[in-house]
Amino acid sequence: MSNKLRAAIIGSTGYGGVELIRLLLAHPNVEITSVISSSSAGAPIAEGFPHLNQIMVDALDGIDVEQMKQKADVVFLATPHGVASTLAPQLIDAGLKVVDLSGDFRLNSGEVYEQWYKHKPADPAYVEKAVYGLSEVFADEVKDAEFISNPGCFPTATLLGLIPLVKAGWADLSSIIIDSKSGVSGAGRGLSLTSHYSEINENFLAYKVNKHQHTPEIEQVLGRVAGEDVVVTFTTHLVPMTRGILSTMYVNLKEKHTEEEIIELYKQYYEGRRFVRIRPQGNWPATKHVWGSNYCDIGFSLDARTGRLTVISVIDNMVKGAAGQAIQNLNLMMGWEETTGLTFSPVYP
Amino acid sequence: MSNKLRAAIIGSTGYGGVELIRLLLAHPNVEITSVISSSSAGAPIAEGFPHLNQIMVDALDGIDVEQMKQKADVVFLATPHGVASTLAPQLIDAGLKVVDLSGDFRLNSGEVYEQWYKHKPADPAYVEKAVYGLSEVFADEVKDAEFISNPGCFPTATLLGLIPLVKAGWADLSSIIIDSKSGVSGAGRGLSLTSHYSEINENFLAYKVNKHQHTPEIEQVLGRVAGEDVVVTFTTHLVPMTRGILSTMYVNLKEKHTEEEIIELYKQYYEGRRFVRIRPQGNWPATKHVWGSNYCDIGFSLDARTGRLTVISVIDNMVKGAAGQAIQNLNLMMGWEETTGLTFSPVYP
Amino acid sequence: MSNKLRAAIIGSTGYGGVELIRLLLAHPNVEITSVISSSSAGAPIAEGFPHLNQIMVDALDGIDVEQMKQKADVVFLATPHGVASTLAPQLIDAGLKVVDLSGDFRLNSGEVYEQWYKHKPADPAYVEKAVYGLSEVFADEVKDAEFISNPGCFPTATLLGLIPLVKAGWADLSSIIIDSKSGVSGAGRGLSLTSHYSEINENFLAYKVNKHQHTPEIEQVLGRVAGEDVVVTFTTHLVPMTRGILSTMYVNLKEKHTEEEIIELYKQYYEGRRFVRIRPQGNWPATKHVWGSNYCDIGFSLDARTGRLTVISVIDNMVKGAAGQAIQNLNLMMGWEETTGLTFSPVYP
Amino acid sequence: MSNKLRAAIIGSTGYGGVELIRLLLAHPNVEITSVISSSSAGAPIAEGFPHLNQIMVDALDGIDVEQMKQKADVVFLATPHGVASTLAPQLIDAGLKVVDLSGDFRLNSGEVYEQWYKHKPADPAYVEKAVYGLSEVFADEVKDAEFISNPGCFPTATLLGLIPLVKAGWADLSSIIIDSKSGVSGAGRGLSLTSHYSEINENFLAYKVNKHQHTPEIEQVLGRVAGEDVVVTFTTHLVPMTRGILSTMYVNLKEKHTEEEIIELYKQYYEGRRFVRIRPQGNWPATKHVWGSNYCDIGFSLDARTGRLTVISVIDNMVKGAAGQAIQNLNLMMGWEETTGLTFSPVYP
Repeated sequence: MSNKLRAAIIGSTGYGGVELIRLLLAHPNVEITSVISSSSAGAPIAEGFPHLNQIMVDALDGIDVEQMKQKADVVFLATPHGVASTLAPQLIDAGLKVVDLSGDFRLNSGEVYEQWYKHKPADPAYVEKAVYGLSEVFADEVKDAEFISNPGCFPTATLLGLIPLVKAGWADLSSIIIDSKSGVSGAGRGLSLTSHYSEINENFLAYKVNKHQHTPEIEQVLGRVAGEDVVVTFTTHLVPMTRGILSTMYVNLKEKHTEEEIIELYKQYYEGRRFVRIRPQGNWPATKHVWGSNYCDIGFSLDARTGRLTVISVIDNMVKGAAGQAIQNLNLMMGWEETTGLTFSPVYP
Repeated sequence: MSNKLRAAIIGSTGYGGVELIRLLLAHPNVEITSVISSSSAGAPIAEGFPHLNQIMVDALDGIDVEQMKQKADVVFLATPHGVASTLAPQLIDAGLKVVDLSGDFRLNSGEVYEQWYKHKPADPAYVEKAVYGLSEVFADEVKDAEFISNPGCFPTATLLGLIPLVKAGWADLSSIIIDSKSGVSGAGRGLSLTSHYSEINENFLAYKVNKHQHTPEIEQVLGRVAGEDVVVTFTTHLVPMTRGILSTMYVNLKEKHTEEEIIELYKQYYEGRRFVRIRPQGNWPATKHVWGSNYCDIGFSLDARTGRLTVISVIDNMVKGAAGQAIQNLNLMMGWEETTGLTFSPVYP
Repeated sequence: MSNKLRAAIIGSTGYGGVELIRLLLAHPNVEITSVISSSSAGAPIAEGFPHLNQIMVDALDGIDVEQMKQKADVVFLATPHGVASTLAPQLIDAGLKVVDLSGDFRLNSGEVYEQWYKHKPADPAYVEKAVYGLSEVFADEVKDAEFISNPGCFPTATLLGLIPLVKAGWADLSSIIIDSKSGVSGAGRGLSLTSHYSEINENFLAYKVNKHQHTPEIEQVLGRVAGEDVVVTFTTHLVPMTRGILSTMYVNLKEKHTEEEIIELYKQYYEGRRFVRIRPQGNWPATKHVWGSNYCDIGFSLDARTGRLTVISVIDNMVKGAAGQAIQNLNLMMGWEETTGLTFSPVYP
Repeated sequence: MSNKLRAAIIGSTGYGGVELIRLLLAHPNVEITSVISSSSAGAPIAEGFPHLNQIMVDALDGIDVEQMKQKADVVFLATPHGVASTLAPQLIDAGLKVVDLSGDFRLNSGEVYEQWYKHKPADPAYVEKAVYGLSEVFADEVKDAEFISNPGCFPTATLLGLIPLVKAGWADLSSIIIDSKSGVSGAGRGLSLTSHYSEINENFLAYKVNKHQHTPEIEQVLGRVAGEDVVVTFTTHLVPMTRGILSTMYVNLKEKHTEEEIIELYKQYYEGRRFVRIRPQGNWPATKHVWGSNYCDIGFSLDARTGRLTVISVIDNMVKGAAGQAIQNLNLMMGWEETTGLTFSPVYP
């Protein structure tokens, strides 16, 4: 066999899992040794995903911790919330590296988890072990981690757009409003009326207004960066497209700053981090500018009339918002160049 | 001939004009006697719009005020801004009723117009004659009008969603943030890269951030309702769909209110006005719920944690945001039932 | 009460049912007295279809033949196949007029039905009573009917495009190839992976190749018109859009004809029939030219090099392909003008 | 400098050029040394294509043969037809390798070119030098070539789907009908009403019926394979999506064959060619199964009732239909593994 790191993917028949497969197949240091699905074990993965014909001929494995221990060095969990909370502890105890893409280990407080996810929280001992993998912000912790809790798609776009401002102490923390818009793939492959083509094509809507489970994740991280509690207003919308998230964020500044100063602040904060690209004045990103890639593009508009700053950030929710950042975290954990296997350009048009 | 009111439409080869044709063809009291286009005069309209084959066989007329005086009682102007400012005065002087769908007569101040539209303003004497046709709010003035300045698409969705709150004095006027999203038809039929299919399909973007020319229109009307100056933050986004506008509006309340009280406030304000529909608690409108119709649907979410109210309103930008409201205004001007010719249901799916 | 014809709609929570509601609400001679759903009886219809808020406030009725007898003069069946075969006979025996939009009574042969639909056929005694409602072709029979079997969406577009040619004896009947493309709404509101947004957006595919259940329906009607058996090759494709069918049909001509002669043949065949529009030479219809309307547009290209004729026809599958033609048939049955309630223009763009 | 092959791309601000950039940036043996645009020379390419920010910082060069000779070993021409016919001869004479993605050198006969392209043909001496780069079929000639004429998008999908059958002598050559459907990116970045979002979204249409300039290209290659003249019926349609081509092809078989035999025939023909994937019985490809990749997937349905075979093939028009196949040809020319730099998976969903 090769000297590559051996990876197993749990939840391989969901969109997150299948995107991990796409990206890991192109990773020079990683070999996929097991694609796992509780529902379709035994079937070739290409049966449900014909785009993988002759590319990935493996049959799907069932969930079997002992087998994973034999076959893999790292396990990616691309499962709905409520699954990793049970599985991840077993994998960690088995000595495996774990990257969890679900929300199960993101919130420090079990109480808050239960309130927003309406589900029993994970064992606090394991929540404590989890390192929150917002790669550009917490790289130092990620480098030492064995267990990564990968950020949510909305929090990734939003936090990368707000943290430099909050860190610098420029933001009026009581004023933060986040208006986010997402493509439909974020809702996954499970059938539902809100993912039914004829309902969502030529349609735009808000959902879970003031109730989205990514709210406390955003607040927890902003609070950690600010050193004080932060409460935000957060609205999510569904866009008739498959991939992409755009967050429009409104913040009152505590003191006067120019757009140039703000852009300079962000450029310095993200210096040397290839996947965050800061736009010049009067230039805002579109989701298509990062489609299929691991980039997060950020632009600004400061309204002289109100003193309010508008920050606009975009990501591909399947890449930087899920599978791409998971691999970026793996790269950091392994001591590899952060960008390994992730340097492909966005697909345009 | 019939006893119907005779209507001429200038700008018949744009999307606004062609939607006026669709709606007026179904109006029981109106007859279209002239479809006018400066660029295509002489050609049958169905040549450029084959959906009108055998429905509208007329050739397009050129712009000729004398001819309009002979052929029409009312003239609709569905032209880009900068055209009506010259034409409308001549039509008014000729004794014709005029409904202008462009922005040329919406702003009281020529200076403000020039600042936001980058174009020479209309003669103030005629601006003064124009009645701003936000039908549900200014019906009394519309009823006496001969010259209507029809509201913009974004202002219609936004103002209907904010006015009851502002009128009641419940809104902190310095806190208003409007995050609007529009389908691509709002940009018209003129060719441009931002309306080019491969650029905008599977894409979502913000544009004219803090610079959209509908900003002063919203502020002027809110200010008039509030009795004091209002400044808002207004962001527009492009959605990969043809029709529909959704505005998400954020307002801090001056005092505590419940969602029930807010819903009751809006229901009372819009009582008897068929085209505004208020949603019950926990229920928000999607643009598809009003697609192809003259409805404006409005829903609410009050965040107990921040005391901030989120208002969500939707319209079809071509109907309630343009041609439909223009006809609603005509109905009011003529003393007809407001809903005449406009009672068709949304098209779903 | 009014003097209007009272209509009940079974299957009101499917797309066909909800389109019947939209169209019948605008019909001057018909009143909807009962909207019926086996799955959602008791709930207001607007609960599942918010676009009907304040437009249709009725609660859904269950399926109750006795009640329908009291409340309705005509019953529309917009149910999946296999339902009408049981229900329609009871309604007919109760003296009600029936328009069935499903495939249950379209095929004369129970054996053929079973072969293509994989379902038990309807009672042949009732199949015999059913008049096939391709309005432009069989208007005379429809006028005398009490029980209409409404054509399928693909057969409507296809047959209107082929019948004049077959009737004239110009077509080589062994050469007919039909390449059809449909929007996703044709698959209904039932959840499935092939109607899942992220699977079908930015995707185009063929399905049921040589196996679609509309094949024998097309063959039966062509055979009836030709006076001999006809076998066709028929392929269906799914287009990433909600509404619209386009059929591209290839036919070898038995003798030489010019495009002008062919166009003249069709114009004569459809003379006086408002809903079929024939295109001039070099001009082909797009689905959007009939969107939301009851029109069927047909265009031609004769290839001098091969002697092969290409016929292109388009309809809105929800209107001319379902609810619109059902109402057109009702108009004929009632002795009303064929176009009553159906004269609205296509929605463009 | 590196030892990589140096590539220049003419037409870098069109969709074909920008896709070449995406793919060549990921190619291990190639370095892009000049991106060239006649219209935007001097500007950074990322100005018009922000997805390339910080990825490709080069300014665009103008068209300068002497400069290309200095900077490049191979030149890709991704220009509209009529440009390469002038430029390619100069580049060839300068000793550069050339891959032309336009139609200028595909047709052997200048007369035929002029008839279908309505443009002056290229110098026959250079047409003769050009090797037609349908990689899987003419690999042997490509390997020895210095000048490649890259196939059109429709011909690639169509020819790969028909050639094994024609080569085997199984096809009735007079019966071939090709019904092709393409995403909108095939029409390029130039503005036109048929690429205008509101016109093409939620729309499906046929265009250039019996007149598409790819017709003689398909006929020429089929004729060459068959050893006799072939005339086909070819229809092109526009699908409301950005990328993807699906060809549905109808062929009468000269003798009886089973689906198994046909599948076996194709598998043998394409043995060892990674980018063509043959589907099993009853299984047909969708354009999304090859989206963003260099694959061509092919499926079959044999109608026992008519003896007619339906072949369905799909490609991504920007990759296998343009930039991907161009690089595949470069690989063959250079004696590299055919798949070098092209092994990435399709993007799904």
